[in-house]
Amino acid sequence: MQTLVAVDWGTSSLRGARLDSTGAVLEERAFARGILTVGAGEFADVFEACFGDWMKDAGTLCLVSGMAGSKQGWLEAPYCSCPAGFDEVASRLAWVKAGRIAIVPGLSCERDGIPDVMRGEEIQVFGALQLLGMHSGLLVLPGTHSKWVTVRDGKIDAFSTFMTGEFYALLRQHSILARTLPTIDTDPGEDWPSFDRGIALALHGGSLLQTAFSARTLALFDRMPQASLPSFLSGLVIGEELRAQPLPADASVVLIGSDTLTRRYERALTQHGVSVQRAGAEATWRGLWALAQTLHLETP
Amino acid sequence: MQTLVAVDWGTSSLRGARLDSTGAVLEERAFARGILTVGAGEFADVFEACFGDWMKDAGTLCLVSGMAGSKQGWLEAPYCSCPAGFDEVASRLAWVKAGRIAIVPGLSCERDGIPDVMRGEEIQVFGALQLLGMHSGLLVLPGTHSKWVTVRDGKIDAFSTFMTGEFYALLRQHSILARTLPTIDTDPGEDWPSFDRGIALALHGGSLLQTAFSARTLALFDRMPQASLPSFLSGLVIGEELRAQPLPADASVVLIGSDTLTRRYERALTQHGVSVQRAGAEATWRGLWALAQTLHLETP
Repeated sequence: MQTLVAVDWGTSSLRGARLDSTGAVLEERAFARGILTVGAGEFADVFEACFGDWMKDAGTLCLVSGMAGSKQGWLEAPYCSCPAGFDEVASRLAWVKAGRIAIVPGLSCERDGIPDVMRGEEIQVFGALQLLGMHSGLLVLPGTHSKWVTVRDGKIDAFSTFMTGEFYALLRQHSILARTLPTIDTDPGEDWPSFDRGIALALHGGSLLQTAFSARTLALFDRMPQASLPSFLSGLVIGEELRAQPLPADASVVLIGSDTLTRRYERALTQHGVSVQRAGAEATWRGLWALAQTLHLETP
Repeated sequence: MQTLVAVDWGTSSLRGARLDSTGAVLEERAFARGILTVGAGEFADVFEACFGDWMKDAGTLCLVSGMAGSKQGWLEAPYCSCPAGFDEVASRLAWVKAGRIAIVPGLSCERDGIPDVMRGEEIQVFGALQLLGMHSGLLVLPGTHSKWVTVRDGKIDAFSTFMTGEFYALLRQHSILARTLPTIDTDPGEDWPSFDRGIALALHGGSLLQTAFSARTLALFDRMPQASLPSFLSGLVIGEELRAQPLPADASVVLIGSDTLTRRYERALTQHGVSVQRAGAEATWRGLWALAQTLHLETP
């Protein structure tokens, strides 16, 4: 079987891995070349500069997931409607170079007349399911735009987006709270008791519009040290996400993402009786590899 | 009775009015000299440049409300704890110049161990109560930091802050939505159906973290014209504030603030059966004038 070059081309970063025929990672690379840094018409050149050497063998296939398939990306791969699994995604690949480089489409779903979208997370979900040997479940991908994804019988049934990471960054950098919190470059480490206090306040509060102001007033009255405020604010926004997506106490969730973020979500969820499994960045490579296997079956 | 110079010195603006002994406004002035533009030690000079001519008569009293009483202001006037009415505020004035210029303290309250604060809004509340002949009620002051204020027997009993206007500005200017919305300088007028749609979505949603993303996806799928998105987003944030502060259907609210903002809140509230009265900027002058009358009684 051929080598796979698996690429995750997002808004702000570009990552790639070379996988052997068993799906084992041979080599990984990361570049600060998210699609926002790439002009229209420059994608092929950037790809060549970053991964050209990996593509020299004529038998190598490359699959690209993420925002590279958006209107502002390399080649638009229109969204697949949910429910969608490997088959739906595989049949909607957008081929940049026939048989060699394909862009994986994102997914869309709709609830109460409001569309929702993802690009790249679907591959992480498929990969995590494979790694964990699961076919159904609730998966959470914390991040700038967190995704809560429901999978049934191997297909993504529906999902919801929460702008949690973006709200944190907006409040941290651009709001009145930025005057009270330590500057970004001196961000202190995790302060778990303050994080927990933020989670608890958010879960019992009505809205982040209100609870966020407490980061200001607690500082104003010297009730919380400045160094604790970033962890407290992180607890407030993550707690708000959990409040808005209530789970039964015996629920089980798969968390996918970076260690820093998934540890925070795991702490918040387990404190409320939710059991958690975690999958890391390898889920992306596994998802693209599994998708490639589907293609082999279809194009012998 | 003497002339009163009433000054509202906020974070981003400085407004003043000269009132005769009956409380009638003789003249008004506004300056872009909020406290953020004034260095430590420069407050007296800025005041003199803006209102010095009004203070020439030795019998003239000046009362200053707003952020001028904060740590970063002219002279710190420590917060009065709620419940607080005219008497409590009058006894805690911070005199810049004895008998001539005083800073009005803000109020603080506390719920579940979390402090809340206001500076300036308490005077608007007292003024609106006088103008409307009320002694108790629920008053809402929309703005960068909206305040919901409960008054009982002429005293402010408790209040809650919502960072509604600030969240709107953050999302409008600094978030991913800024790429989809029209630029600020071409902001279109009110689009009431889109505003109403935002309100309805927020009231039935779980959190602004989630509903805000719909401003992106509705645009992405051409379900809402770009020119409608600012009104829709305004509905989302105001609706979020109302969702978090549920009111009985027969509730009655006094709205205090600018026409543009109070009209939006009035529309949202009345659609849900809440009856609304409105008071404008004159509430500040009336509140400071009424406070001045209390002082005369105390210092004959």
